[in-house]
Amino acid sequence: MYSFKNDYSEGAHPRLLKALSETNFEQAEGYGEDLYTQKAIELIKRKIGNDNVDIHLLSGGTQTNLTAISAFLRPHEAIISASTGHILVHETGAIEATGHKIISVEVKDGKLDTLHIKTVLDSHTDEHMVKPKLVYISNPTEIGSTYTKEELKQINKCCQEHNLLLYMDGARLGSALCSSENDLTLSDLATLVDAFYIGGTKNGALMGEALVICRDSLKEDFRFHMKQKGAMLAKGKILGIQFFELFKDDLYFEMARHANGMADLLRDELTKAGFKFLVHSPSNQIFPILPDQIISDLLKKYAFYEWTKVDANHSAVRLVTSWATKEDEVLAFIEDLKCLL
Amino acid sequence: MYSFKNDYSEGAHPRLLKALSETNFEQAEGYGEDLYTQKAIELIKRKIGNDNVDIHLLSGGTQTNLTAISAFLRPHEAIISASTGHILVHETGAIEATGHKIISVEVKDGKLDTLHIKTVLDSHTDEHMVKPKLVYISNPTEIGSTYTKEELKQINKCCQEHNLLLYMDGARLGSALCSSENDLTLSDLATLVDAFYIGGTKNGALMGEALVICRDSLKEDFRFHMKQKGAMLAKGKILGIQFFELFKDDLYFEMARHANGMADLLRDELTKAGFKFLVHSPSNQIFPILPDQIISDLLKKYAFYEWTKVDANHSAVRLVTSWATKEDEVLAFIEDLKCLL
Amino acid sequence: MYSFKNDYSEGAHPRLLKALSETNFEQAEGYGEDLYTQKAIELIKRKIGNDNVDIHLLSGGTQTNLTAISAFLRPHEAIISASTGHILVHETGAIEATGHKIISVEVKDGKLDTLHIKTVLDSHTDEHMVKPKLVYISNPTEIGSTYTKEELKQINKCCQEHNLLLYMDGARLGSALCSSENDLTLSDLATLVDAFYIGGTKNGALMGEALVICRDSLKEDFRFHMKQKGAMLAKGKILGIQFFELFKDDLYFEMARHANGMADLLRDELTKAGFKFLVHSPSNQIFPILPDQIISDLLKKYAFYEWTKVDANHSAVRLVTSWATKEDEVLAFIEDLKCLL
Amino acid sequence: MYSFKNDYSEGAHPRLLKALSETNFEQAEGYGEDLYTQKAIELIKRKIGNDNVDIHLLSGGTQTNLTAISAFLRPHEAIISASTGHILVHETGAIEATGHKIISVEVKDGKLDTLHIKTVLDSHTDEHMVKPKLVYISNPTEIGSTYTKEELKQINKCCQEHNLLLYMDGARLGSALCSSENDLTLSDLATLVDAFYIGGTKNGALMGEALVICRDSLKEDFRFHMKQKGAMLAKGKILGIQFFELFKDDLYFEMARHANGMADLLRDELTKAGFKFLVHSPSNQIFPILPDQIISDLLKKYAFYEWTKVDANHSAVRLVTSWATKEDEVLAFIEDLKCLL
Repeated sequence: MYSFKNDYSEGAHPRLLKALSETNFEQAEGYGEDLYTQKAIELIKRKIGNDNVDIHLLSGGTQTNLTAISAFLRPHEAIISASTGHILVHETGAIEATGHKIISVEVKDGKLDTLHIKTVLDSHTDEHMVKPKLVYISNPTEIGSTYTKEELKQINKCCQEHNLLLYMDGARLGSALCSSENDLTLSDLATLVDAFYIGGTKNGALMGEALVICRDSLKEDFRFHMKQKGAMLAKGKILGIQFFELFKDDLYFEMARHANGMADLLRDELTKAGFKFLVHSPSNQIFPILPDQIISDLLKKYAFYEWTKVDANHSAVRLVTSWATKEDEVLAFIEDLKCLL
Repeated sequence: MYSFKNDYSEGAHPRLLKALSETNFEQAEGYGEDLYTQKAIELIKRKIGNDNVDIHLLSGGTQTNLTAISAFLRPHEAIISASTGHILVHETGAIEATGHKIISVEVKDGKLDTLHIKTVLDSHTDEHMVKPKLVYISNPTEIGSTYTKEELKQINKCCQEHNLLLYMDGARLGSALCSSENDLTLSDLATLVDAFYIGGTKNGALMGEALVICRDSLKEDFRFHMKQKGAMLAKGKILGIQFFELFKDDLYFEMARHANGMADLLRDELTKAGFKFLVHSPSNQIFPILPDQIISDLLKKYAFYEWTKVDANHSAVRLVTSWATKEDEVLAFIEDLKCLL
Repeated sequence: MYSFKNDYSEGAHPRLLKALSETNFEQAEGYGEDLYTQKAIELIKRKIGNDNVDIHLLSGGTQTNLTAISAFLRPHEAIISASTGHILVHETGAIEATGHKIISVEVKDGKLDTLHIKTVLDSHTDEHMVKPKLVYISNPTEIGSTYTKEELKQINKCCQEHNLLLYMDGARLGSALCSSENDLTLSDLATLVDAFYIGGTKNGALMGEALVICRDSLKEDFRFHMKQKGAMLAKGKILGIQFFELFKDDLYFEMARHANGMADLLRDELTKAGFKFLVHSPSNQIFPILPDQIISDLLKKYAFYEWTKVDANHSAVRLVTSWATKEDEVLAFIEDLKCLL
Repeated sequence: MYSFKNDYSEGAHPRLLKALSETNFEQAEGYGEDLYTQKAIELIKRKIGNDNVDIHLLSGGTQTNLTAISAFLRPHEAIISASTGHILVHETGAIEATGHKIISVEVKDGKLDTLHIKTVLDSHTDEHMVKPKLVYISNPTEIGSTYTKEELKQINKCCQEHNLLLYMDGARLGSALCSSENDLTLSDLATLVDAFYIGGTKNGALMGEALVICRDSLKEDFRFHMKQKGAMLAKGKILGIQFFELFKDDLYFEMARHANGMADLLRDELTKAGFKFLVHSPSNQIFPILPDQIISDLLKKYAFYEWTKVDANHSAVRLVTSWATKEDEVLAFIEDLKCLL
């Protein structure tokens, strides 16, 4: 049974494991103050083309989101998020557990726009309601859609006008930046958002997310927050070693391109076969709409999530590819699917 | 420069890295629902000799402490801890950040006893004060001392009589259980405390702590708390694989014995050389009192922490050994020390 | 300018002020342990016809909601509320500040039903999402609608089946229980919900809410929570004296009936005059839809909230009556309105 | 039985009750936006002689402390307090419940000094510990001692040098400022501390504390925090009316002087009778050391707290006087005491 359930089924890219092995017996400072972490941070700054950012390495997405957002906000300040936002739905109230309300906005394609933001601002007018302060977006979104540079510029402008912070969840940022429709760079992000993270867990690391804090006022004392939230590994070097390896030869992007390539292959073949999709998603998650009978047949050989019923006889499924997805398996899947038509 | 600063300077035992490599491309369920994690849990249950415990794998000590303690307590309930307790001093208020007060008790050797506990209970009498509910101990303590079975029985009895929970921080549990003075087993712990964790980070894992919940009433919904606190790795299998490897041939204890052996060697030689110690510590941390001049000379070749001034010309230092400590370096350290006398 | 903006514009019923004056120099125990508070609690228990409830007197609605709900829930547990719920919209994230997510359900008339609840349960299936645990309803709702006994029985049954707690916000409970459509008694509430409060602030007290905890498992240590949240007045007797006065001759219900009577008068006359209402609200808040020109003329002599635009030329306004509303002013308002037609 | 247990046994000064009655039927804006509250705030600003402060009226001391301190701090920041501090001991962990650690400093007389503060700073050096940020003092302290202007200047200087906030709990501020040893004015406080409150509950109000925020950076959005913590009364005018009355003819200070006068009388007579005191306390709380037999005889006619055993046959008791303490009862107490000698 081959799995298209997610992009964290396998371990790490072998080069990362090799680097961990090779450096294993070097004694290093703890808690991210080692040389590998420093080298990784310098390298990422160079990739971003901006020295005036602070970078911290954390272990996972929920951890990064809750640590960053709770560090950035005062108690009465709230987050604006699309109704599909990961922090809103799939993090077991991690943000609320730090005391902050998330204001949900219904959106069609997982993406927030300035109109959504302004509607929230218009309805939050006094101290009897929370104060919207941070706009949370993901790129790609939880349903695979991506932001263009122009869209992000508009949101950035809106945030600046209304004194809002803009935070980008980049759990799958590699896939977004390597998507065929992407026109954003890491450098752009550093100028257009106040903080974002570069996801490692879902793109070839054992675990690890690199949080990039761009706005000066958010930088102070961030390591205190990491420690307080249990987000500072004693052996911080294992994050540093991995991120250094991910970025030193652009392995990170190479893996994301592979993941996207596999998704493209699936998307193209499914399109050719006449299938529609639940949402336009140019990244490594696709949501084809299939007859229920075919879904149930495919599930005998492949693992993937049934996402939502579409009509009496059809459902959308979620297929996720990754750095580790094998082209053979993708082709086999397509072949099997064709046989079922 | 060789470091005796701590027991997390190196990476992981090579067998763990090997196991990670060998299983790297196996697709696994996420979030700790994979087979390796299940196997590790079954194995640890067998080592404990008790099937009626719940075991969860988390990434680090502060994370484990804050997730467990906040899951176990109601908002008005407080923790009793020795004044040297790790949660009280060195976790940046992680417990308080979840809403709970820690009541500090001055102790001499890092160890709580029933008298300490009763004194706290006697002074907390009504709803204008927090309600003491959980006793936090570490074994070994933050200053290397260890609990005997009889001491733990007394504390357990006191907790039962007063309806208190007993939680043991086992960041260095391997070292405690393999100490020459130890008479406790994992099985004993499962009957004498309500929850404890078996520390991996400080005993040969890349990261990882195995939390063992013994009391039934504390087990419900624990995975919700892990997720909410950002303590559930997407690639949970990397913890499962490591803990399976740690326990399948008792590698965990073998490493702890090595760490203790290296500490014993240092302790013996320092004793022979006429030095005193700040505290009696039969585990892998020792605190010899040395002339300041000798300390400053040793620091040219070795890294370690100066712990506290003892008098005008002497200080206690902390020397920590680990699974990775090289006997050659220990011997060289002793040799260098002798030359300075 | 006469105000129909809310039901807390005036002070307290003169009998309450008189009672405060008469008892002013009696020395009493602090923090709600005085005899007046005990007498008030006994009296309310008698009115409820149930001795097996715990009653606590707090100062305000938001305070009562946040203290009770945070005391009742574990960290990962969430609240289900109508999208119009006061805790969701108008309490500045007070509940989230205690760490809990509120799950919003879109409803038409401010009222939750079992279908709403089940839909939430169906979509919260694992530990990656919060665990719905407490159903929050208000009677009357924030838009004046009320629950029938049958509706409440259905919700109670649903909560029991799914192990949910049922909490009723009774900020305006007097108005609900005295509404012409009401078939519920205080006794019914004590058997149908797990906790509710009897609002004093909006029905003739200077301030004060009587929280009634019906479910045994929610009672323990509640005073600790009150103290921790700053919800325990040193001079607790001023709440006891007021609640004793409110209930000793059913002044509480007498005042609520007056408030409702004034609302009925407005509703009847507006209906006769041909106006429609935004929502069916048999309590002391009504939401007539008026031409914008008439609204703006009325606002020259009367204070009230414009609630929402209905079409290009019409808006719904909110008119609130209270124990202190003067019939003369109601009649004058109606007269003025008629003149504008 | 006459009580010297505390200063909140009675209700309010009759002039406050009268003012509440006289304004009872005036319709006012809710939530502290009424004219009485505005007038009270203007009046207090005039008494302080400083227009550049923000003033908010809250209901009680614990509520004021938790709302202010949690609004002023970021999550990793901690409070420095004397070990006897009210927030540390007698508020059921209210501050910790908002996420912040309180660092306890052992002091002899309830008073912090700069040496205490520096010792805390010296031991909190990195991100593995909380960051001390706010110094909490009470004037008078919980054991009746008071600060001089010079002492406060020293603390202020130390706080400025180390970028710390200085907060004064003024639950009994009237008594401190009217003490025979006092050389501080409200104006001094506004320049020497960053925020303080003027306690009403313990000096003749039904309830109410006036929080004065002096430092500009702490002012923003404070009303959001009040609402979020349940600290904003719907009928805010009842606080405004009381504080206006308290300050319009200096009734506040007149009452405090009476309370102090009664304590002075007790202190003088006890001194003359040869008794010693546990602590030097020039305010309205005194702690004479009496033979246990006499204490037990006195307790037959008077209520007061036994504070602490001093030796085998003696204990310190706490006698508290207030605005409402009757001179006759004080004289009777002294007479009764003399008869027991």
